[in-house]
Amino acid sequence: MQTYSLAELVERFGGRVEGDSTVRVAGIGSLARADENQISFLSSVKFRDQLATSRAKAFILGEGVVGPDGKPSIVCDNPYAYFAHVSGLFNPPPEAEPGIHPAAVVHPTAVVGAGCSLAAGVVVERDARIGDHCVIGPGSVIGQAAVIGNHTRLYANVTVYHHCVLGERVILHAGVVIGADGFGLANEQGRWVKIPQVGRVVIGNDVEVGANTTIDRGALDDTVIHDGVKLDNLIQVAHNVEIGEHTAIAACTGIAGSARIGAYCTIGGAAMIFGHIDIADHVNISTNTLITKSLPHAGTYTSALPFSEHSEWLKNAVQMRHLDSMVRRIRALEKKLETLERTNGNS
Amino acid sequence: MQTYSLAELVERFGGRVEGDSTVRVAGIGSLARADENQISFLSSVKFRDQLATSRAKAFILGEGVVGPDGKPSIVCDNPYAYFAHVSGLFNPPPEAEPGIHPAAVVHPTAVVGAGCSLAAGVVVERDARIGDHCVIGPGSVIGQAAVIGNHTRLYANVTVYHHCVLGERVILHAGVVIGADGFGLANEQGRWVKIPQVGRVVIGNDVEVGANTTIDRGALDDTVIHDGVKLDNLIQVAHNVEIGEHTAIAACTGIAGSARIGAYCTIGGAAMIFGHIDIADHVNISTNTLITKSLPHAGTYTSALPFSEHSEWLKNAVQMRHLDSMVRRIRALEKKLETLERTNGNS
Amino acid sequence: MQTYSLAELVERFGGRVEGDSTVRVAGIGSLARADENQISFLSSVKFRDQLATSRAKAFILGEGVVGPDGKPSIVCDNPYAYFAHVSGLFNPPPEAEPGIHPAAVVHPTAVVGAGCSLAAGVVVERDARIGDHCVIGPGSVIGQAAVIGNHTRLYANVTVYHHCVLGERVILHAGVVIGADGFGLANEQGRWVKIPQVGRVVIGNDVEVGANTTIDRGALDDTVIHDGVKLDNLIQVAHNVEIGEHTAIAACTGIAGSARIGAYCTIGGAAMIFGHIDIADHVNISTNTLITKSLPHAGTYTSALPFSEHSEWLKNAVQMRHLDSMVRRIRALEKKLETLERTNGNS
Repeated sequence: MQTYSLAELVERFGGRVEGDSTVRVAGIGSLARADENQISFLSSVKFRDQLATSRAKAFILGEGVVGPDGKPSIVCDNPYAYFAHVSGLFNPPPEAEPGIHPAAVVHPTAVVGAGCSLAAGVVVERDARIGDHCVIGPGSVIGQAAVIGNHTRLYANVTVYHHCVLGERVILHAGVVIGADGFGLANEQGRWVKIPQVGRVVIGNDVEVGANTTIDRGALDDTVIHDGVKLDNLIQVAHNVEIGEHTAIAACTGIAGSARIGAYCTIGGAAMIFGHIDIADHVNISTNTLITKSLPHAGTYTSALPFSEHSEWLKNAVQMRHLDSMVRRIRALEKKLETLERTNGNS
Repeated sequence: MQTYSLAELVERFGGRVEGDSTVRVAGIGSLARADENQISFLSSVKFRDQLATSRAKAFILGEGVVGPDGKPSIVCDNPYAYFAHVSGLFNPPPEAEPGIHPAAVVHPTAVVGAGCSLAAGVVVERDARIGDHCVIGPGSVIGQAAVIGNHTRLYANVTVYHHCVLGERVILHAGVVIGADGFGLANEQGRWVKIPQVGRVVIGNDVEVGANTTIDRGALDDTVIHDGVKLDNLIQVAHNVEIGEHTAIAACTGIAGSARIGAYCTIGGAAMIFGHIDIADHVNISTNTLITKSLPHAGTYTSALPFSEHSEWLKNAVQMRHLDSMVRRIRALEKKLETLERTNGNS
Repeated sequence: MQTYSLAELVERFGGRVEGDSTVRVAGIGSLARADENQISFLSSVKFRDQLATSRAKAFILGEGVVGPDGKPSIVCDNPYAYFAHVSGLFNPPPEAEPGIHPAAVVHPTAVVGAGCSLAAGVVVERDARIGDHCVIGPGSVIGQAAVIGNHTRLYANVTVYHHCVLGERVILHAGVVIGADGFGLANEQGRWVKIPQVGRVVIGNDVEVGANTTIDRGALDDTVIHDGVKLDNLIQVAHNVEIGEHTAIAACTGIAGSARIGAYCTIGGAAMIFGHIDIADHVNISTNTLITKSLPHAGTYTSALPFSEHSEWLKNAVQMRHLDSMVRRIRALEKKLETLERTNGNS
């Protein structure tokens, strides 16, 4: 395995070395599991006690943290992000077979850039354009006139519909569907008339989309996912949604049509966001939370119901249907008591 | 682009022209974005002010709405549905390469109708029957003895299991799975014994199913989706569910085994419907709502918890576990107060 | 169709025959739908009345239940599990074409065991190993160095990422994704840095996974699904989750990173489980329930909000944001009343 000296790591990723910067490491692991050739990291002071017992050869530490005697450290502002960078160096994405596999089907009008890997079973449709150094996994389908930026990777069985656009360094995991029709329907005497979905999905650079997530194309305008957005698995992004830069959304979340999510937001798993609302930058939405109206201010928002042991829950749940009556009873008590107090005061 | 005169549109879709019916339009757009060759539409009176400033050449308007001076209109009962029809005329589904692609694999016993398009990577298994004018997208799989009606379209990477039946003009978006085994298990001393799922999925005409939605086959009888049903993305329909005509269901919803949903219902996103219950026609279920028992009457039903700013939520959420005790405290107060009032009255 | 005598069934699956054990049956059906050549079963005494009117030739009954006059029965402890076994005998999984289809692509370094069926469009990558008697459906992809145990079946369009491991007799339904990257990100000045996901997914024996379910690979260590686990459709299992033996999880559930679920648990649909928590064996979690902390004891846990007719819900929902104030008002009333009672007592 490729090894790096601490000096080389610091040259790439910043920070400074305390101790012998010529020490070479051959990988990265957690404090508990790193071996004696690896570097480890302290992401939180609560694990500080593990430093002394870790077998790691060197450590990535925050400012002010003292490593074990006789072992060198890289000191930096953000050891967890530093770990991510170093781990990326030691663990590049799985290698792909170079070239276009004979069992891939590329339409003669499609353009495939330099240094691409197209696996067996890939289908690239008419007029599609794939940038340089892309990796398209087995069974993935690039629709008509779709555009894929450089260094983008699609794992297996991904579908990109016609005319959709992906930026550079995008990662789409297996089963992702980009650009299916939005759920656009007009009701005519009880029956649904389909509204053609003629917008596209436009995805920026450095976006990652988790397995089996779906992002629908816009009705008239586009659905837009800005640079650096990270989506987990099994998320639904409806037509004409816009998601701001560097927002991260956990699995099983649904975002209804034309919602606008700001930049630098975090959205917990299984959140549901109503359509046609605006969410400000730097908003955090908790797991299982339903957002029913615009959130114009940064902050954390929650609507999850706390769980209980089932028999306990039964007793409380029945009262959730009587809250209005409870409030009315409290109000009545308050009035009566006030009267009584007045009477008593007068007596 | 193909153009149509207002007279031609009215001949196809009804309504009447006010003004010059020979005016020809080349597309349709929203009031804000239509160009001077397009027709636009007013779906709600709240957008009425945009009529004057729209660049559109003509408008689709409801009865009693007056268009801008000097521009002709189509007047009709339901401008939004009219828009859907006109948009469908100007925006047909993406064209598919005609014929069976050499990289499609069709079992010799399978039957493929006239005018079909089978893309590269399609697999049609033994005894399957595909009707006329169907479009089967790349990587889609039609299982053994499955039946696909005329004019049905499967986008990429769709799976239809053995023996399932699709009607005419059905649309299945990418990643849809029709006919996987239902979650049928018998517990035997803590272990699960699989119950073979020998029913089918039977889907009517004019059904549309969104990306990555799953509809399981029945255990003994069939799972049935009636004509005109519209399902959004990432919906789970369990074994032996029945969904009535023209019901529309938004994304991320789950419907448990043997639930029967009526006709003309609407179900919001991320709703959950218990198994073995009956839901009447014309029921509306709100987003995030859990339906735990049958709904014998039309109406709108909801169980979503309102969100709050997180610190506010914390204070209230803790009390959700004390509702029963709150009610008992209110009751105690009421009794004491009554006693006190009696005492006071007597004093 | 193959027929079996009751004696033969008892020899395979246990129990005892009451009546003529030479009677042969040709299938199994529900009490209402079994025909005169089939055996039926009574899974619950509440259906007992249907015994007399069923056309079935024989019955599977629990101890102490008397079948109709003149028809033989198999008597056993668990008629529903017995039904599952007998139904499995009469309804084997759909047959697959034997051998490796010429339109499957198997890397020369991959190993495919004896008696396997690899359908058209299957892709097996470098160094993958497939056991004996496996069935791999059309369009499924076995990643580099992945390992598939004997008698395992993948339906169509399944993706197994590199280095993942499946046990024996595993069933993966269409669209399942095993081993996509976990949602591992480090925040660096607002931007997300990807943390390589270098663990695997390791799945035990006799596991079944429903359509479009996703199980992410571990960040450093593995995600582990133990023997006999049954997962329904559209479930998200995040990185480094561990699910204990014979646990069953219904559709649309999400399990966040590093959660440990015990053995013999049942988890209802659309449940959400927080990350980094421990759930004991024999825990039951209700539909739509959010589990936010460890559950060290067996039991049933719930957090679902009861639904109401919408106008009723509106009145109650508004009070959910005032529970804290309600409690404070009750407390104030209690104090005032106590004072009043003391005053009155003294008066």
